[in-house]
Amino acid sequence: MAISIYPITGLGEIGEGVRLGEAIAGALARNNLTVLKGDIIVVTSKAVSKAEGRLVRLDGVKPSPKAVKLARRLNKDPRIVELILKESRRVLRVERGIIITRTKHGIVCANSGVDQSNVPEGYAALLPKDPDRSAEKIAEQIEARTGVKPAVIITDTYGRPWRRGQVQFAIGVYGLNPILDYRGKPDTYGRVLKVTEIAVADELASAAELVMGKTKMCPAALIRGYGYEVGFVGAKYLIRPLKEDLFK
Amino acid sequence: MAISIYPITGLGEIGEGVRLGEAIAGALARNNLTVLKGDIIVVTSKAVSKAEGRLVRLDGVKPSPKAVKLARRLNKDPRIVELILKESRRVLRVERGIIITRTKHGIVCANSGVDQSNVPEGYAALLPKDPDRSAEKIAEQIEARTGVKPAVIITDTYGRPWRRGQVQFAIGVYGLNPILDYRGKPDTYGRVLKVTEIAVADELASAAELVMGKTKMCPAALIRGYGYEVGFVGAKYLIRPLKEDLFK
Repeated sequence: MAISIYPITGLGEIGEGVRLGEAIAGALARNNLTVLKGDIIVVTSKAVSKAEGRLVRLDGVKPSPKAVKLARRLNKDPRIVELILKESRRVLRVERGIIITRTKHGIVCANSGVDQSNVPEGYAALLPKDPDRSAEKIAEQIEARTGVKPAVIITDTYGRPWRRGQVQFAIGVYGLNPILDYRGKPDTYGRVLKVTEIAVADELASAAELVMGKTKMCPAALIRGYGYEVGFVGAKYLIRPLKEDLFK
Repeated sequence: MAISIYPITGLGEIGEGVRLGEAIAGALARNNLTVLKGDIIVVTSKAVSKAEGRLVRLDGVKPSPKAVKLARRLNKDPRIVELILKESRRVLRVERGIIITRTKHGIVCANSGVDQSNVPEGYAALLPKDPDRSAEKIAEQIEARTGVKPAVIITDTYGRPWRRGQVQFAIGVYGLNPILDYRGKPDTYGRVLKVTEIAVADELASAAELVMGKTKMCPAALIRGYGYEVGFVGAKYLIRPLKEDLFK
């Protein structure tokens, strides 16, 4: 069966307090799309951050001496560095203007996900506090409006250590199993697969980016036809446990 | 515009010497699919390796003393370790039964991409020698059969250092620009984006995996409706230059 990915356009600017699931249900209707059982809704973390009031006015940020020092070294705004440090649990690398951190969620990424693209001048966006819970709320709001509860994925754009360019990762997941576990299943020769676990939530996030883009004012997509496994462990399950980390 | 991803089934077992582009064109016809201008064909590296005779009979592999020693430490088949070392340019990490290497192509991955899943007992598959050239040949063969030259992506399944599970990466690309460069373009607030380059070939590879799966005998997919930028730099452009590597 084929998979289809639809952009959800016409959401407009997301203000603080917007109920994102309701806004998406409305935009879907205007796009002549109906949510069907088994559909997946993908939303960027930037949209969620805006709706949840996670935009910070830089004028109100007082950088610590540590942030000031690091900012000078990296030629960055010390208020941004302050936010990056505050959102982090640990700093892993500092180089070429980038601070690689492990965030309070446990995600390893550049600049703790603190980002100024697609936010108003003088503001920075922090990641949602609990993206798995945000995904669940969006699913509930869509169900309240349409009678169908979709799976929901919240995404963010991250680099990879040995690959050029960035891809979308799933940082919040509701309703689907983020990892498809093939271990113990036979391959086409009957040999039992030993180590194959596929991070399908990350693959779905990347697939959705293909219709969302960066400059097109389209922070959401609908994926239809992917037969996912129902699951409720959330995107936090995608974080590799520290003891398995070969690249600390 | 929506994107559609179709599995290309019925390719059957790929033997050495099979002209993969022709086989795909045949399978598409049997699936009632016509290649249209702008379509992307995605093929697993395993299928390409089989067609190009990159299966190695383990009985014929003589492990070096170095491979024997490493194999003992990791509890692996010394002949497999010999192949991993032979395919590598450099060993980055050795831990928990996994050898992380930089391959001769420059790709950083587990076990140099040497793999025994979905290959006959007693054999191991090596990655294609020149996956960008393999992708080009597949495109040419499809054009010869159908009159339309699609973009082609060859994929392999890789882990990521801080994420559980694996996703598909593009290791061979023909006809499309693997990176979409947003640098210098305005965001929705007119602010110029500074660092956003999206690895669309990797996102397309991940999207295709959603219909291909691991155990379903479906090593190819067709992606329709993604308006790619034409480009010929190949998947090698996705490899981050060594001087930019923060995690050597």
